Amino acid sequence: MTPPTTATGTSATTRSPADLPALDDDGRRRLTELAADLRVRAISMSAAAGSGHPTSSMSAADLLAVLATRHLRFDPDAPDRLGNDRLLFSKGHASPLLYAVLDSMGALSGRLEGFDGVDDAYRRLDSILEGHPTPRVPGVPAATGSLGLGLVIGAGLATAHRLAGLDEPHVWVLCGDGELAEGAIWEAAEHLGTAAMPGITALLDVNRLGQTGPTRHGWDVDAYATRFAAFGWRTITIDGHDVDEIDGALAEARTHDGPTAIVARTVKGRGATETADENGKHGKPLDDPDAAIAELGGRRDLSITPLAPTLVDGPPWAPDDPSARSDDGPSGAVELPRWDVGDPVATRDAFGAAIVAVGAARPDVVTLDGEVKNSTRLDDFADEFDGRFIQSYIAEQLMTGMAIGLQASGWRPVMATFGAFLARAADVLRMASISRADLTVVGSHAGVSIGEDGPSQMALEDVSMMRALADSTVVCPSDANQTAALLPQLIDRPGISYLRTLRQETPVVHDADTGFRIGGSTMLHGQRAPVATIIASGQSVHDALEAARRLDADDVAVQVLDAYSIKPLDEEAVLDAARSSRRLVVVEDHRREGGLGDAVASTLARHGVAPGTGGTGMVHLAVDTVPASATPAEQRRRAGIDTAAIIDAIGS
Amino acid sequence: MTPPTTATGTSATTRSPADLPALDDDGRRRLTELAADLRVRAISMSAAAGSGHPTSSMSAADLLAVLATRHLRFDPDAPDRLGNDRLLFSKGHASPLLYAVLDSMGALSGRLEGFDGVDDAYRRLDSILEGHPTPRVPGVPAATGSLGLGLVIGAGLATAHRLAGLDEPHVWVLCGDGELAEGAIWEAAEHLGTAAMPGITALLDVNRLGQTGPTRHGWDVDAYATRFAAFGWRTITIDGHDVDEIDGALAEARTHDGPTAIVARTVKGRGATETADENGKHGKPLDDPDAAIAELGGRRDLSITPLAPTLVDGPPWAPDDPSARSDDGPSGAVELPRWDVGDPVATRDAFGAAIVAVGAARPDVVTLDGEVKNSTRLDDFADEFDGRFIQSYIAEQLMTGMAIGLQASGWRPVMATFGAFLARAADVLRMASISRADLTVVGSHAGVSIGEDGPSQMALEDVSMMRALADSTVVCPSDANQTAALLPQLIDRPGISYLRTLRQETPVVHDADTGFRIGGSTMLHGQRAPVATIIASGQSVHDALEAARRLDADDVAVQVLDAYSIKPLDEEAVLDAARSSRRLVVVEDHRREGGLGDAVASTLARHGVAPGTGGTGMVHLAVDTVPASATPAEQRRRAGIDTAAIIDAIGS
Repeated sequence: MTPPTTATGTSATTRSPADLPALDDDGRRRLTELAADLRVRAISMSAAAGSGHPTSSMSAADLLAVLATRHLRFDPDAPDRLGNDRLLFSKGHASPLLYAVLDSMGALSGRLEGFDGVDDAYRRLDSILEGHPTPRVPGVPAATGSLGLGLVIGAGLATAHRLAGLDEPHVWVLCGDGELAEGAIWEAAEHLGTAAMPGITALLDVNRLGQTGPTRHGWDVDAYATRFAAFGWRTITIDGHDVDEIDGALAEARTHDGPTAIVARTVKGRGATETADENGKHGKPLDDPDAAIAELGGRRDLSITPLAPTLVDGPPWAPDDPSARSDDGPSGAVELPRWDVGDPVATRDAFGAAIVAVGAARPDVVTLDGEVKNSTRLDDFADEFDGRFIQSYIAEQLMTGMAIGLQASGWRPVMATFGAFLARAADVLRMASISRADLTVVGSHAGVSIGEDGPSQMALEDVSMMRALADSTVVCPSDANQTAALLPQLIDRPGISYLRTLRQETPVVHDADTGFRIGGSTMLHGQRAPVATIIASGQSVHDALEAARRLDADDVAVQVLDAYSIKPLDEEAVLDAARSSRRLVVVEDHRREGGLGDAVASTLARHGVAPGTGGTGMVHLAVDTVPASATPAEQRRRAGIDTAAIIDAIGS
Repeated sequence: MTPPTTATGTSATTRSPADLPALDDDGRRRLTELAADLRVRAISMSAAAGSGHPTSSMSAADLLAVLATRHLRFDPDAPDRLGNDRLLFSKGHASPLLYAVLDSMGALSGRLEGFDGVDDAYRRLDSILEGHPTPRVPGVPAATGSLGLGLVIGAGLATAHRLAGLDEPHVWVLCGDGELAEGAIWEAAEHLGTAAMPGITALLDVNRLGQTGPTRHGWDVDAYATRFAAFGWRTITIDGHDVDEIDGALAEARTHDGPTAIVARTVKGRGATETADENGKHGKPLDDPDAAIAELGGRRDLSITPLAPTLVDGPPWAPDDPSARSDDGPSGAVELPRWDVGDPVATRDAFGAAIVAVGAARPDVVTLDGEVKNSTRLDDFADEFDGRFIQSYIAEQLMTGMAIGLQASGWRPVMATFGAFLARAADVLRMASISRADLTVVGSHAGVSIGEDGPSQMALEDVSMMRALADSTVVCPSDANQTAALLPQLIDRPGISYLRTLRQETPVVHDADTGFRIGGSTMLHGQRAPVATIIASGQSVHDALEAARRLDADDVAVQVLDAYSIKPLDEEAVLDAARSSRRLVVVEDHRREGGLGDAVASTLARHGVAPGTGGTGMVHLAVDTVPASATPAEQRRRAGIDTAAIIDAIGS
């Protein structure tokens, strides 16, 4: 990496906010030079990589030059430290600009081993400098690159500051104009504007050109300002290449008692004749990078010294005993609710009781609701710990984005809505997995068993969706004790952990002292020489048990494997069951594709096990059609996943 | 069904618009009575079913009474006829109100066989009157119940009118206030407002109370009016229980040359002391329905005679020869592009060329873009058929919702974006499947093979998502000829059909005259006595072929099954391959869960086939980790899905 030289500021040492000099001619010149240098670096990086988005970086270079030099409070030696301002590129494709800024601050120092500086590392195998930023890069709170997510994540980062009682740190989100068409932007605009959330600023880089041509509003900056203002934001419209206007807007934004949108009219590809305001230059290196670099005054490798953030002690929830955040997690401290075998309890109710117990023991747990807390049973937590309960209203992308932001600041978010409506946040969850976010997702109202409300309210594709996410965990408990026991483990587990709960009551079948673990299973109705094994989870465990009991009367020995952990699956138990039973039946209240049945089949296939003596095969009972309204029992009968269907499957 | 008696209007026969009488005292009284009756019916329906949303129906009863009686142009004898106004309940849970209105018009006549009227049929097994409306109900264009989707679907319905050159039909969308927090609402608000789309009105039922308590803005109707106005809508704020105000607003909305939002302040549960403006009464029958019905003046079973729509001939695209829309579809008329074996062609390019050919032959095909048409290769279609090309900008929920609306009006929509970003529309696609919508979805940039752009741009969970949808079709072609041949079949196929395309070029391996069919597969590099079969699709077919060629040199006979049709899978070919090969390898550029590997494993397990001689099992090569940036070849190597990994798998 080229050693940076000082570009602006009074010295190379960290400065305190009070030292911020007024912007004079020299300062203006330095900022303009820095912006040109950032453009040069973006061009150079993309040229070296042979791909990238230099023109989307060039439009925002002045914004970032002024922000990073004169407003951002950031410790480059500890980029992820509490107390730092947060900088998030919602337009993640402008990564060359972000990396240029971080590099100029020295924040990438020692992080590019094996590469000869940023240009060499950009978009290369084994480099942290990916095409779109992820938290592998110091100072990046979340992965971006799927557009329109900066403000929902930013809302979580700003909320984290509020929860921690920190007034100083500010959240700066750089948005493109094209991505303002995404609904997620407006979910956040509504949430932040109506709450008059301070400490967050959206920098709107209105460069007029999208990927394929002009954006909907082109350079009509008032169109954007009007919209954000309508949602309660302060808006400041500026020339995004005028350092004085930028400087004034940023200063105003930091002190405003609510969210600010700085609507900056900019030129895409600014600074080079080849690219300035030219359509068709999106997402590719320049044809003649050397000419453009020369036009910009050549490469300077200037350095940036950001303002020093106020030192902040550890997070407010830091436990006295550091071992409380050990591998085992602090779950041991949680006194979980217990239920007696035979009690009828919906697993959503068990979740509701267990999350209150967790909340009492864990000050780092926050919960988020999609305005259905009386359905998911998050309402008791909301009542008891209202300071750690966040109402997203009916806006699942916002809820999920905020969870990403909160976990990036050390909180342990638990978000809950109907499992069906999690599909609304599918892309945000996908990006969360790329962020390596640790969050617990609770989806209630599993399957056709919800009954009369009909298919729009049924989680039928949820297991498929959550199982396909990288490094995810998926559990679907069958009773209250199992639900409570698994919840703290999910909260402590890295990655995205999904708890699928049931609307309807099911009898408690597991003693509270039964051990449950992620990756485990429990054999119920065990048999010495089983004729058949039924593998099930959730509601289907009860239908399977009833089938087993009825078959007992006919001396047909059937055992039930409660495979509550769908990912990871208890492969050993599944293989044992398949090998030891003449019949194997998998039943699930979920679509045929992507759920427990596929997980079991995959295990069998990979281990070369043919289920069902005599080539009869595994019987897989699952939902194949679009249900309508009916009672829960009718729904399961119609879908062919009820007790009668299971008995038929074993007898056939 | 109770025979309806006349409530309003001059006669029971259909009236023409010109006959619309001015609202006098008698008319007011009749409308107020009708509204009371609709409330009674909603209460009664929910009481009979033991579930439902009477209070959400009661707030909007006056709006619907005036709309249905004096403004809606609708033929109850042909509720789904072109030329009718469209009525869509975005707040689908207010289904009792919708069903009461349709029943009062006689539109449900003959559709409730086996039930004793609406009350008996509501939410019952085998009834069309589900908890949330679907197109099984006459006059319902699309399923709702996942909130916030009415305006994106409505945008499609309004666009369909414009495309068909119909000025008269109007689209009326009833929205709740709670659902206005959903980003999808604002994607549509932006699209419709900026385009000044005429012929669509949003009726905002601002009843202050959500499911769990007050909404974000309560009765601050100005908050909503300000927001819609900022997006370019005409807004009219009214008392939603004042029939004169409603009547005036609806008349104004119909004639406005752009979209209108009627912001109606209403009382949830209006008309009954038990429920009026009471929290905690959402989504449940009344405690004392009889008292409420008495308070509302008892049941009247009034009828509604809507205005007659202008008779409209068949759709503008109607082919002269009716057989052109036969079972085979009109695909035969399409002259598809052809490529020579060995040509390097990206399947996205083949899609781009084929959709132009389809567009030339099929006047009913419309396409939708998420502002990435130069990436998906929809750009040539956009140039050649700009009247049938719709730019959604970066708003995937809008794009998908519009597609639902368009197909509800007889068009055949083909929407395309990066496969990764389809996750943004996962819930809309789920609702499309509940709508039994026929639409073709194209997702480009499949898998890690896109290379340097990194994981945010990679479709890695798309097959899982699309495969889990009810009645869906999923294909991933390996070359250009296969892509072109499958496209018209997908467009003609009922349900949601997914075409997964590749960013990178792959050599054409199939002759253009090879027959390809949904549910089929093609054996490549066939062998008499194969040691191993590799099952693959898309890019992986080429990696598998290279592995097979290299293994030829070692006299290891390997065949490659191009399983381009992932759902439905060619089960027979898969089983044959598994039974006839000592080794079975499945390779896919997709996550391990929910894709081709799971489909194959499921087939083997259900048929009791153990792959791999000697219990070695099926080897499943798929993406398990979060990729970063790298070249396409490096990506596949790192993910363990490249030629070398396949050779290892066969040798191991």
